[in-house]
Amino acid sequence: MRITALAGGTGAAKLLRGLVACLDPHDLTVIGNTGDDTEVWGLHVSPDLDTATYALAGRLDVGRGWGLADETFRCLEAMGRLGEETWFNLGDRDLATHLYRTRRLRDGRPLSAITGEIARRLGVTARVLPMSDEPVRTRVRAAGADGGDVWLTFQEYFVRERAKVEVREVAFDGAESAGPAPGVLEAIHDADLVVVCPSNPVTSVGPILAVPGIARALDATAAPVVGVSPIVGGAAVSGPAGDLMRARGLPVSPVGVARAYAPWLDALVVEPGDRTFEPALRAARVTPLYASIVMTDLQSEAALAAAVLAARAQLARAC
Amino acid sequence: MRITALAGGTGAAKLLRGLVACLDPHDLTVIGNTGDDTEVWGLHVSPDLDTATYALAGRLDVGRGWGLADETFRCLEAMGRLGEETWFNLGDRDLATHLYRTRRLRDGRPLSAITGEIARRLGVTARVLPMSDEPVRTRVRAAGADGGDVWLTFQEYFVRERAKVEVREVAFDGAESAGPAPGVLEAIHDADLVVVCPSNPVTSVGPILAVPGIARALDATAAPVVGVSPIVGGAAVSGPAGDLMRARGLPVSPVGVARAYAPWLDALVVEPGDRTFEPALRAARVTPLYASIVMTDLQSEAALAAAVLAARAQLARAC
Repeated sequence: MRITALAGGTGAAKLLRGLVACLDPHDLTVIGNTGDDTEVWGLHVSPDLDTATYALAGRLDVGRGWGLADETFRCLEAMGRLGEETWFNLGDRDLATHLYRTRRLRDGRPLSAITGEIARRLGVTARVLPMSDEPVRTRVRAAGADGGDVWLTFQEYFVRERAKVEVREVAFDGAESAGPAPGVLEAIHDADLVVVCPSNPVTSVGPILAVPGIARALDATAAPVVGVSPIVGGAAVSGPAGDLMRARGLPVSPVGVARAYAPWLDALVVEPGDRTFEPALRAARVTPLYASIVMTDLQSEAALAAAVLAARAQLARAC
Repeated sequence: MRITALAGGTGAAKLLRGLVACLDPHDLTVIGNTGDDTEVWGLHVSPDLDTATYALAGRLDVGRGWGLADETFRCLEAMGRLGEETWFNLGDRDLATHLYRTRRLRDGRPLSAITGEIARRLGVTARVLPMSDEPVRTRVRAAGADGGDVWLTFQEYFVRERAKVEVREVAFDGAESAGPAPGVLEAIHDADLVVVCPSNPVTSVGPILAVPGIARALDATAAPVVGVSPIVGGAAVSGPAGDLMRARGLPVSPVGVARAYAPWLDALVVEPGDRTFEPALRAARVTPLYASIVMTDLQSEAALAAAVLAARAQLARAC
């Protein structure tokens, strides 16, 4: 069974770990968000691609949800001594990935090829694709100190400001002129099941959907498209998804997630306690599926992954 | 007393440590070799500038003679895991210097300005100047495995091949079209004493002298120019200076050092056991001065520095 997963950061990483525990990793293609890519100390950093790759390699720092396990931050400390900004945490081992990526990009290689090289060299047999080889950058219009508007890069908003500023608008710079990376549309078209990981629908999955052609491919694929809600009840499992959904005019609930993925989402896995949203989900033509979506260890990751994989058969029966 | 020192790597670092133990660091200008600058993982590395800067900051790994004290190499290990070359050792803290330099160079800043920024930010009050803002690259024509010629960058020769290949020629690519960095000629002209550190005369001091205008300034300055021999008896104190001097047709002795620095060298500090070379040195119009030139600790570094500083008065008496 060929699985194609749209992936953002931490929540996606957990489900991806679960998926490769349940299936042959060769059957998995990950389409990763690059809207939060950024330049740090002259290096091209792709946080979500790396989180997915490290998770699939079994090397992610699970506690933090980003970066490599058993990491140190000595270069970062030295950067601080040189007077450089240090709010974006790059670990010493992690730096190797960014140095490699930056050098290869300067050599003229596309990000998709480099992402594949890094994954292979870290022993990942699943395929990891960036949504696009062209730069798409998520920006957040936030309330500045004086109450006026200030545009922040996603990392300025998320890491530097710890997502504590009021969000007024989210934009994806460069999206209109970007194209899907090689293999992205095919992976959606050829999949037996498309999974939308439990990532922030606005800034993790939103940039992927903003790349022209991807939403259409999701609409057109014969594969069922199953999402996992990143929202339990009225709050995000982690991160600022709630604030960002509100800023986009979406209710902070599984229904808001379903609305963000209309009209191509077939089913949404939600927490069993969220049955109250079932009528609204069905009205939006989304089949609710119930499973525990809060992943706290490898066992719960694999259990959720198994529930997602089972969705294909469930949906086939429902047709 | 304003001191200007021409500096290569390890031996220079020791004398520089001694000099700043003896005088106000504000009175010291270091002109560093950039002939062995290299690109590693896409980063611009200036080994000799960094060795001088770290030594002056009191942060050099004295045992190794390069890099920072209390260093780790975790990024390097991770680079190896990514399949990258790892024969050039960049430490995790040291990486910050190269990342900073590389980014600033990409911003269009000249190397001399960046070198000053790094030195100041590490608390160095002496002035550290690269010999040139333009790239000058030392290359070594060596015997290849098949006996034929192979051109190596200096670091390939020195680090990768551990200086164990036969040297046939040394060249300084780009030297003819390079100019001295801002402040270099002035520092030589305005000095009260010019010191040539105990560095390899071919590949550490040679590139500095190959920059048009610098040798002429050394010849023209009113300041006495005092060298410290990197050779004791018939062998280098450390490193491949012997092989490189032979390849340049120089005798491996204090006389060979004097010859490399003719006609502008006024005095050469040599080991007391090397009095046998006195007639040849005097014939070359170089005053031999005797002091222990093997530096094994801060005390011996300071003692040699004091002997070098005393040379000015000695030479004045001799006139």
